[in-house]
Amino acid sequence: MKIVIVGLGVIGGSFAMALKKAGYDEIYGIDTNEETLQKAKRMGIIKGAGTTDELYEADLIILALYPRLIKTFIMNHGHRLKPGCVITDATGIKGMFIDDILEMLPSEVDFVFGHPMAGREKKGIDFASDQVFMGANYLITPTKKNQEKNIALIEQLAYEMGFKKVRKISPACHDEMIGFTSQLPHAIAVALINSDEEGRDTGSFIGDSYRELTRIANMNEDLWSELFLGNKDNLLKAINNFELELDLIKKAIHDYDAETLKQYFRKSTKRRERLDV
Amino acid sequence: MKIVIVGLGVIGGSFAMALKKAGYDEIYGIDTNEETLQKAKRMGIIKGAGTTDELYEADLIILALYPRLIKTFIMNHGHRLKPGCVITDATGIKGMFIDDILEMLPSEVDFVFGHPMAGREKKGIDFASDQVFMGANYLITPTKKNQEKNIALIEQLAYEMGFKKVRKISPACHDEMIGFTSQLPHAIAVALINSDEEGRDTGSFIGDSYRELTRIANMNEDLWSELFLGNKDNLLKAINNFELELDLIKKAIHDYDAETLKQYFRKSTKRRERLDV
Repeated sequence: MKIVIVGLGVIGGSFAMALKKAGYDEIYGIDTNEETLQKAKRMGIIKGAGTTDELYEADLIILALYPRLIKTFIMNHGHRLKPGCVITDATGIKGMFIDDILEMLPSEVDFVFGHPMAGREKKGIDFASDQVFMGANYLITPTKKNQEKNIALIEQLAYEMGFKKVRKISPACHDEMIGFTSQLPHAIAVALINSDEEGRDTGSFIGDSYRELTRIANMNEDLWSELFLGNKDNLLKAINNFELELDLIKKAIHDYDAETLKQYFRKSTKRRERLDV
Repeated sequence: MKIVIVGLGVIGGSFAMALKKAGYDEIYGIDTNEETLQKAKRMGIIKGAGTTDELYEADLIILALYPRLIKTFIMNHGHRLKPGCVITDATGIKGMFIDDILEMLPSEVDFVFGHPMAGREKKGIDFASDQVFMGANYLITPTKKNQEKNIALIEQLAYEMGFKKVRKISPACHDEMIGFTSQLPHAIAVALINSDEEGRDTGSFIGDSYRELTRIANMNEDLWSELFLGNKDNLLKAINNFELELDLIKKAIHDYDAETLKQYFRKSTKRRERLDV
């Protein structure tokens, strides 16, 4: 199977490593950064830089690009891909481009939309790793045009790369869930660290909690502004729901109401324990 | 040096382990739970259960108790402690009891207030570990009554137990910082997980970010309600400042303002990177 990975950043690079490790060796990489390509070649995770020849002969194309570039890629190359070719992506939101892409894609090319729920707070191939997918969740948002065997292929690859659980859901449900589980935590982390007062030696006063809650405040600004704005309504709803809960806690503190606080803590403890099962 | 640790929960137990590992072997433990005492003895981290004899002969007493019990302990035992005895604690807030304690404490007993900034989301000796202090911050809030040599003793013990940095500050500054770096993150974690809608299979849609931001939502409800209410004004201020930042992010999303979002992300990234230095 000839695989072409478009974009060898932290996610594309990790795909290359994990697929290589799983035994796939006809992997080509495409990247606008020549140095990244050389590095990937030296690391032995790609057979070589992919030209349009490889691209148009590929059995599987993995798009590890910024969200807004997915549609551009299909616009530029979709009609020249090999019949039977399967495309997948790694984009954190789906609703913003799925319908458009399905409309412009030739019927003999099948786009199986995927979302590996793993990443690093740093960007670039230097932070890629075949470990980052281990035990993580993988989401697939099937469309009416998808062939069963192609969905099965992506699912199989996900397990081969180390993902623990593959879940299939609608794009709308995906974006709603992701607004809550991924984008809201990032918004919180940014707001938390930005709400610190300037000039305090905060680093001397932190424990694991602050360290953990702000790790993801180290943001790829281009990627995350696209993700936030591409999922605007879901994210705003998630932030509002979160603020309502925080206001309940505030009220209990203000009222010096230990019993109500404990009730919130018991609820959060139960929910957190359930998550680990 | 005869050491008595009062309260062998996750923190007291970790103190015993870390001190034992650092070479101190005359360590006695006091706990209301007989099973905990037996366990600590079997683990070899205490020489034995401490009676009032040991307590009143101790050179160093470590109080690893719930905040409200600190004052009670001094009230019951303060006047019977050995002249020259040093007491320290592990409480996450200071302002609520320091003045009262200084008032009732005999002048020949020295209370050096301390706060090891490390913990676990679970309670009890089963979760104690001599690793939990490794690389962590330790805070001391000196008072006018403290003798230099006793502050130096606690500082030395902290380093011997594996803490990386010991910082001395006023109780007021301590509580303000802790409201931001410790209590606010806990309030956020609780609100985040409690704002999830009931009945969704959220566990299939999470990545490391949600996992990390909610780990501490597993709360010891008795401890944290005391900490929240004992630091009411500082915590409410920290929550309000955080909400202001979150509202800025909300507004930028609402206005579809990528440039402003990126500006917030650059600020948070810079602050987070500085934290790791």
